[in-house]
Amino acid sequence: MATPFRFLSVPRRAFSAAVKFEGRVSMVQGASRGIGLEFVKQLLENDDKGHVIATCRNPNGSNGLVNLKDKFAERLRISQLDVTIESSIEATARDIKETYGHLNLLINASGILSIPEVLHPETTLSKVEKSSLMLAYEVNAVGPILVIKHMWPLLKVGGGFGTERSVAVVASLSARVGSIGDNRLGGWHSYRSSKASLNQLTKTISVEFARKKDPIACILLHPGTVDTDLSKPFQRNVAQEKLFTKEFSAQKLLSIINNVKSHDNGKFFAWDGQEIPW
Amino acid sequence: MATPFRFLSVPRRAFSAAVKFEGRVSMVQGASRGIGLEFVKQLLENDDKGHVIATCRNPNGSNGLVNLKDKFAERLRISQLDVTIESSIEATARDIKETYGHLNLLINASGILSIPEVLHPETTLSKVEKSSLMLAYEVNAVGPILVIKHMWPLLKVGGGFGTERSVAVVASLSARVGSIGDNRLGGWHSYRSSKASLNQLTKTISVEFARKKDPIACILLHPGTVDTDLSKPFQRNVAQEKLFTKEFSAQKLLSIINNVKSHDNGKFFAWDGQEIPW
Repeated sequence: MATPFRFLSVPRRAFSAAVKFEGRVSMVQGASRGIGLEFVKQLLENDDKGHVIATCRNPNGSNGLVNLKDKFAERLRISQLDVTIESSIEATARDIKETYGHLNLLINASGILSIPEVLHPETTLSKVEKSSLMLAYEVNAVGPILVIKHMWPLLKVGGGFGTERSVAVVASLSARVGSIGDNRLGGWHSYRSSKASLNQLTKTISVEFARKKDPIACILLHPGTVDTDLSKPFQRNVAQEKLFTKEFSAQKLLSIINNVKSHDNGKFFAWDGQEIPW
Repeated sequence: MATPFRFLSVPRRAFSAAVKFEGRVSMVQGASRGIGLEFVKQLLENDDKGHVIATCRNPNGSNGLVNLKDKFAERLRISQLDVTIESSIEATARDIKETYGHLNLLINASGILSIPEVLHPETTLSKVEKSSLMLAYEVNAVGPILVIKHMWPLLKVGGGFGTERSVAVVASLSARVGSIGDNRLGGWHSYRSSKASLNQLTKTISVEFARKKDPIACILLHPGTVDTDLSKPFQRNVAQEKLFTKEFSAQKLLSIINNVKSHDNGKFFAWDGQEIPW
């Protein structure tokens, strides 16, 4: 458990001037189900002083979030956010600013791979459609980047205060299939290219954060193949021992997040801490 | 100069059944100006039996193409094609199929970096706009991939016949700033991410071509910083000896293209033949 304000070399006042809440504040974007929801649960369970903002498109439709709200009450704040609607991101940023004044952690957990009748992971170039490429890009690459854009000021204020880290962390869920160098099977054009873009955008952002000496590290995470709705249609060829529970994957990823150092800024890690090639 | 049909081990008949024209047929997409136009010129000059299909959004607006048409007459075919309008790509594919029956080379040379009042290369995350990201992605990544999708059957028929190569070549202009691993300066979010996507999509396609044993190699090319309209607003900080003429760059890239082997499929080369990391 972290001791709040253990980094005594940083003047308390500089921080306190902006924050309105002195505990650890985390935001999980894409929290209605799957790994996102599990992140919210574990963050709340692991730190009895921590607060979590959970966002999703339709909060009332998430039984998981409703149940967590019953249990954790005021430590969980649920906010409606759709990554394709920038005004909803801005509204959430304003709400966090007014309520807490800062953020120590942002997890981008939303993502799409397949939507019946709309988006199908491509098995061949001849099935590649512009609409699928654009949709995957909008949701998987552009959305998370806009969230980082609007949470940036809050992360800059928060840094690692209240945590065991010296930096705030932005962790976006990428995927090993987004790696160009590791692409040996082909297919899944829309998903692969959207994740490669997310990787490039995150790397680009990390360069600016480093140059400005912002107390923020941006990382990309590959959760493994996790037994969630996203992977359900594609689990057939996954060996049982390689199909993780969301509890296991979220625990591994939170361990990486909690141990992030500033020199990890701009890196791409698998669930086991190994770096993944671009 | 290539000797037509030097690969005598391949039955002539299998090829002739589909082709309607036995010379070398190249397509340059994005040929109105800059490097694209220069590719057309050099391809026509270097092979007095070769035919070139030059495509652009507004053929009548390209003085360069009009002048080449005057000089090379029936060896140059100009076709209206806008990478954002898939039906125009299909129409060009149909025209090439009817006229030649095959393709030996496809160069994707179109691309956008900045458009006054519309698209500005970003200098900071706070200036990143969804509309810019989506536009760059549509034109720089999705467009070239849709062109490859519709020219694929023609490239499969053409292979390396009539050339010195054993394969047809798809060469798409990427850029070193699209490299994630080489991203040290940050900025240019839209352009960088669109080129990273183009790289991932091309790699994905190359895997399928290899698996199906199609006689096609897909490569990505970094032309260097070339003195064209695209780079004009950004030439200030480029050392004189690193600012190439389009003649020099196109010559270097055509030399790479002419020497492509099937094991180059899926690779990313700079103008000097060095591989660039993803």
